[in-house]
Amino acid sequence: MSNIDMIRAAQQRLKGRARHTPLLSSPFLDDIAGRRVLLKPECLQHTGSFKFRGAWSALSALPDDVRKHGVIAFSSGNHAQGVAYAAAQHGVASVIVMPNDAPQLKIDNTRALGAEVVLYDRPGGESREALGDKIATERGLTLVRPFDDPQVIAGQGTAGLEIAQDANALGIKDADVLVPCGGGGLTSGIAMALAADAPGLRARPCEPVGFDDVKRSLSCGEIQRNSAQSGSICDAIITPQPGNITFPIMSDLCGPGITVSDDDCQRAMAAAFTRLKVVIEPGGAVALAAALYRPDTISGDTVIAVASGGNVDSKMFQQALEKYA
Amino acid sequence: MSNIDMIRAAQQRLKGRARHTPLLSSPFLDDIAGRRVLLKPECLQHTGSFKFRGAWSALSALPDDVRKHGVIAFSSGNHAQGVAYAAAQHGVASVIVMPNDAPQLKIDNTRALGAEVVLYDRPGGESREALGDKIATERGLTLVRPFDDPQVIAGQGTAGLEIAQDANALGIKDADVLVPCGGGGLTSGIAMALAADAPGLRARPCEPVGFDDVKRSLSCGEIQRNSAQSGSICDAIITPQPGNITFPIMSDLCGPGITVSDDDCQRAMAAAFTRLKVVIEPGGAVALAAALYRPDTISGDTVIAVASGGNVDSKMFQQALEKYA
Repeated sequence: MSNIDMIRAAQQRLKGRARHTPLLSSPFLDDIAGRRVLLKPECLQHTGSFKFRGAWSALSALPDDVRKHGVIAFSSGNHAQGVAYAAAQHGVASVIVMPNDAPQLKIDNTRALGAEVVLYDRPGGESREALGDKIATERGLTLVRPFDDPQVIAGQGTAGLEIAQDANALGIKDADVLVPCGGGGLTSGIAMALAADAPGLRARPCEPVGFDDVKRSLSCGEIQRNSAQSGSICDAIITPQPGNITFPIMSDLCGPGITVSDDDCQRAMAAAFTRLKVVIEPGGAVALAAALYRPDTISGDTVIAVASGGNVDSKMFQQALEKYA
Repeated sequence: MSNIDMIRAAQQRLKGRARHTPLLSSPFLDDIAGRRVLLKPECLQHTGSFKFRGAWSALSALPDDVRKHGVIAFSSGNHAQGVAYAAAQHGVASVIVMPNDAPQLKIDNTRALGAEVVLYDRPGGESREALGDKIATERGLTLVRPFDDPQVIAGQGTAGLEIAQDANALGIKDADVLVPCGGGGLTSGIAMALAADAPGLRARPCEPVGFDDVKRSLSCGEIQRNSAQSGSICDAIITPQPGNITFPIMSDLCGPGITVSDDDCQRAMAAAFTRLKVVIEPGGAVALAAALYRPDTISGDTVIAVASGGNVDSKMFQQALEKYA
């Protein structure tokens, strides 16, 4: 289980390694939302997403004689890049297991960050878990899970400590903190940090319409699954269900979930381009979309939205600009 | 004349008002450049460019009974937005004089930031100076010049104090600091700040090929003019010649100028999108373009590039992505 002491310890280990991302704002966004909007751009984090925090936290928490054998992760996305870069910075090997139909650019980028990429035959039905277990056992690698791991959650929680610190400095005592939510690692970590350091701030998970497993789980008090696993542009945050570790934390500490449409994510991406000059990926834009276009679901005169990542294909980004910039 | 004490005083007045922008980096950019690249993204500054620093510095330095009558500026670009927003934040009126063929979006944005926009008939040959003088005299407004003003230069210099502080924290003792250069307000301000706080760091002006008035002026020791006033996508930094105040400072303190092609600016914009998740306008990208694609003109194992602004039309940005992302 994670707790606030683990988050504070992770912050110490991340010092000088992760970026303390700022809170950005624009009067134009305040006008759209009808309240003050502050954006925490984790797209500016190393490797373009918050995932570097959790990866660094997990790797740096391993005993030396375990870490030195290297780590392994299953991911074709932001978690892959975070783990690859954190491992390279630690000077240890990383193996990233990806489907063989992953975009070549993601494979190339993960390799360029220092990882060995092992492909499995997803269309052919090969089990990535079986393949990963085999490699891990043979080489003594440690698995770094994407969200349901106490040290990963602790690392993501450092973003929450920064929000608490910067909100306190701005005199903000009460606000909803909107967080893009997949498995819940970032949301649960931020929720614990806010509960400790800024108890008037309340974390709220944001998801795409139709993939609201966390919102429904929080609403009924039991873990619910999504019926579909594809069909939204918000690929980075589409997960089957909340984690076994993250869900009880969110259930204790988070406010109700909010859902937004893919179209509103694209509008939010265009607004961030025009008004804040940052690049946000679709899944990373759900919280800003909620802040701007679902004002009725939010209370208070200030809202804080986390932009969880910026690793978006240029074609997808251009499409958002074409439609809404 | 400007000096380091004025820059430090401006920093005090800007405290809590301007953003201390970070130094961003990516191993992918280091690979392109063949050395460590650090980017200072002033596109993340309020109003999307460094101009807010100088505008706030100038306004906050005015005596209360002068400032209360308001300010006036001639600009259709970043200076207009910086002055409008700084005036609004001070609670005083601003008049921005723009040509009547300026893009409607720029007029709308400047108005939305609180300014009164007065249009003059540029195609008809109307003198903006005569119009501006008339309005200023009638209403007791103070003119805020875009670069050749000691308090404006002092404000821009605060970006240099931040670079010195952050480079020192990273242990960087020697490096070229590449600065997009129009009239020289930002370059001369940064040069003075570095000379005081990080004397191993050397400011170097960057300009588009064919609009290298500052490079040629520094090279021959006398102010030179550009023959053309249009024909580059880097509109934000196309000025006829260096300023009478900025040039002697640059002549004293800056290293040789560097020129880059419009194409390389677009490549740099695409690289910043892909690797750093920030939006840079063409003129704001000349320094990053020099860092990435003119490595032969730079010495040392680290280079720092300033991205001076991000106010780019979405069509122009999409074009850069289309070609190079």
